[in-house]
Parts: sequence; C-alpha cells; structure tokens
Amino acid sequence: MDNRPIGVFDSGLGGLTVVKELEVLLPGEDIVYFGDTGRVPYGTRSFETIERYARQDMSFLLEMDVKLIIAACGTVSSVAPHVGNDIDLPFIGVVEPAAKAAAKATRNGRVGVIGTTATIQSGAFDRAIHQFTPEASVLSQDCPMFVHLVENGWCTAEDPIALLAAQRYLSGLKEQGVDTLILGCTHFPILRQVIAQVMGPHVTLINTGAEAARRAASLLKESGQCAPSDHKKGRCRFFVSDAVGGFNRTASMFLGRDIREQVSRVDIINHPILPSCSSSKGE
Amino acid sequence: MDNRPIGVFDSGLGGLTVVKELEVLLPGEDIVYFGDTGRVPYGTRSFETIERYARQDMSFLLEMDVKLIIAACGTVSSVAPHVGNDIDLPFIGVVEPAAKAAAKATRNGRVGVIGTTATIQSGAFDRAIHQFTPEASVLSQDCPMFVHLVENGWCTAEDPIALLAAQRYLSGLKEQGVDTLILGCTHFPILRQVIAQVMGPHVTLINTGAEAARRAASLLKESGQCAPSDHKKGRCRFFVSDAVGGFNRTASMFLGRDIREQVSRVDIINHPILPSCSSSKGE
Repeated sequence: MDNRPIGVFDSGLGGLTVVKELEVLLPGEDIVYFGDTGRVPYGTRSFETIERYARQDMSFLLEMDVKLIIAACGTVSSVAPHVGNDIDLPFIGVVEPAAKAAAKATRNGRVGVIGTTATIQSGAFDRAIHQFTPEASVLSQDCPMFVHLVENGWCTAEDPIALLAAQRYLSGLKEQGVDTLILGCTHFPILRQVIAQVMGPHVTLINTGAEAARRAASLLKESGQCAPSDHKKGRCRFFVSDAVGGFNRTASMFLGRDIREQVSRVDIINHPILPSCSSSKGE
Repeated sequence: MDNRPIGVFDSGLGGLTVVKELEVLLPGEDIVYFGDTGRVPYGTRSFETIERYARQDMSFLLEMDVKLIIAACGTVSSVAPHVGNDIDLPFIGVVEPAAKAAAKATRNGRVGVIGTTATIQSGAFDRAIHQFTPEASVLSQDCPMFVHLVENGWCTAEDPIALLAAQRYLSGLKEQGVDTLILGCTHFPILRQVIAQVMGPHVTLINTGAEAARRAASLLKESGQCAPSDHKKGRCRFFVSDAVGGFNRTASMFLGRDIREQVSRVDIINHPILPSCSSSKGE
C-alpha cells in the first residue's frame, strides 16, 4: 500500500482524459496534475525543446512526492519516452498501451495514427504497433489544428469548422481503409464525435489517455502500491504554469465539475531540468 | 547617423509584417528580429506571463546593441506597453500608431478592433482610439484562432475553414456597421483577403505592423538616427527560441525570399528578465 499520489503531466488540458479515467478505475487515489499551460502547445516544437519542458514538468512532480508518473501527453511520450529512464519511479507514456490496444482491435491490419506534428514525425506509434503486429500497415497523419480547436472550444459534433478540419485531415486515412484509429494526442478524445462522423461507425477509435490510465491501474495493483482500500475518496490537485482562470473554466467543463478550489499556479520555468543519466529502463 | 540595428520582437512570425515594411521604408537599416517561437502564442496567456516573456525578449535585443525596439506584437503592446519605460532607447508598440491611423480613416466613427484574447481584454486599443477621437464607438472582438490559422498556413482567400472562422468572428462587427477595422495582431494581415471578403470593400483595414514601421521610420529620421545614406543594403538577422527549420519555411514564404542563412536559435529562457524601474516614458 502506498499513500503517495499519482503524478500526471501534459502540455495543457488534454491530460485530463487520463485523470477522468483514473478517477473511475482508482477512485481512492490522490492525483497531482500538472498542465504546462504557459508553454502549450508542445506538438509544434523541436524535439529538444519538448524534452527540456518534459524534464522540468517531471522535476515538479518528483517534488510533489508522487509514486508513479504518467506522461499524459502524446508528444512527450513519442518524442522523449527516454526521460522515464532518469527517475526511480514507474513511468508510463501513452504510446505503448495505445499501440497494444490498436493491435488487438484491428481486423484488417490497417491502423491509422493521428497526433501532433512532433508525434507523427517521431514515428513512435508506428514502431510500437509493429512490435505487437509486425505485419500491420500503419498510416499516419499529423493534425496540429485539432489541439487549437479543442483549446478554443470549437469541438462539438455540430461545429462546421471542426467537421471541415476533420475531413481535411482524415479523408486520406479513411480512403486507405483503416479500421482502427489511434487518437495519439490526449486532446483528441474531446473531438471524438467529429472524428467518428468522418471515419464512420466501423472504425474503432483508441483513446490513448484511457489506455494509459488502465496501464497505471494494472501496474499499481500488481505491485501492491494502490492506496489503502479504506482510504477516503482520492484528492485531485491541479497545477498549471499560466493563470488559473482560463484552465478552471475549460477543465471544469471537461471534467463535469467545478475544480476552482483545487487549481494552483506553478512557476515552472524556475524548476530544475531533470538531469539525464545513463540507466536503461523501458517506457 | 547611427549604424546600430533596429530591434523587432514578436511571439512568433507575425512581427515579420513589421520587418517587411521596414525594408521598404528604410532599406539601409540593419534589423535584428526575435520571434519567441518556443513560447508562441502569447495572446491566450495571463498578463503577468506576457510581461515576463516581453522582458526577456527585450533583454536579448538590448544585448544585440539595437538603437530602437519595436514590440511587433499586438499582445505585448496592449498588455505591457510600460515595459518600454524601463529601457533608455526609443520603444514603439503597435497600438498607438494604428489607433491614430484608424481615427484618421473612419468616416462614421465606428471602429472595429480584432486581436488576441489578451489584447482585447486589455482595452488598450479602445483607450488609444478615444485619445484621438473621443466620440468614436469602438467595437472589439478577440479572434484567437486566427493566429493558429496563420501559423498552420490555413489562410488563403479560398480556404473554406478560414472563411468560416472569419464569418464567425467578424459578422457581429460587420452588422454593427464599422467602417474601419484595426488588425490588432501582427499575424492578421496574412488573413487580409479573407477578412476583406467578410467585411466587404467599404471597410478600411488597418495593418498595425505597417503603421508601427512607419512610426519607427519617422522617429529615426527626426532624431537623425538613420543609418548613413551611403550605407549598403541593410542586413537582417533573425533569432528564434525554437528550432529554426519550421520558422525558415513559413518566414521565407511570407517575406518572399529564402532567409535560411540568417536564422539562429536563442536560448531565451536563460536570458535575464529586464527589471522594472520607476521612470516614466510614453509608449
């Protein structure tokens, strides 16, 4: 049994898809969430910048004495999964759990992956899918505007701009006959209905955040590190690197409850950059 | 006569609208441009974060020994114009020159202002317009998605998404009969054709970047600080805080020439934050 909180970080609010699932799977766990709203988006930045930002985010979570870290960010998980080697805690990214779920779901072996530009450029999902199904055809498309559509609330099923953007990005994947599509950025499940409308009812959508949360739950159960079963309902604390007001509004809408009291500001640029060491550990 | 370069900074590539105009007006001047591509966008961040970023950007330009600084960013010019008080150089923002041009252009006294969320929340353009025409009606609208449309290249006159976004943001201003519209973010002139299509041919569009460049040219001429007239064609150097590759491509397209050789990377987060002092000087 381990009373320490689970640490979750993302570039902004996309990682709340992980928090939402953790609250269902592990209602007794405390969670510390860090959203780097002062530097969002990560997905259009260079690999070097993304890694540096991730190392600062993780330094913050380590200071909060977490027992496990989830990189709830498709971009960090794809571009810099090796940052997990530099901590003495379990580290879970969103790539491998989603790739495993997609390999299980596909019937025709044609798997689509959508994500930020950095995620798609990294090829991380392709490699991970091929580990599970070497014969799979992986078709990728970066969708950088999806993050902005979500952050601006232009993401309902009825929004003609969201629909046009989804058609622009996804029609190629649809024509190529993918039957499974990995939503490789934790923002994207918020556009799920629009994406489903374009891809049609026979394409399975894989929610990377939910898969990562499931992996964390299994890992904590296996290692006996869950919070004690008599533990009260877990407490969520949210930290952001920009003003709390904007985050409150969108996050509350997204989580379906008012989280105003639980959000604080962190001066992330003054946090140390977690140093790299030479140990070797999987994602 | 003063051989030092003109310093220009922006959150990203929008400030190139200023560079483009400076090259026409003052072809002999050297220019140092800083685009904070590692932290773009500014316009959705808190006032405090925007000011801190602006103070680091200015520290960098001061190190480059510039003779004048242009905040070629509608957000910084609106939210933190007082940062100009803390340097011993002329400082030009985009608000006051554009407000003056709009006051001159309007026939019916109904002036529209569009910008980032932070710019519109600051009310800076409203105040500046009222200084020139106290009786004007100023109608404002934040258009945060315009920055992303530009940065993603979804900005041609034929793009249905750009057109739908412009209709969504601008139809209210059109209905309210503005005859002059300030493009209060230096990214927006790149959407000029789309904006003009929605607003119609009788609405004058004010390009804030071009107005700021004109102000700089007048100021240097008046103070005798232009580069010597026998000076060769001025040299432009571009600095960015993220990878140079992405900036090169978009900037070259925008300036109509290959600038690959002139772009370097700067580690802006390690630059000092220009301290605030209590002197008082206008924007």
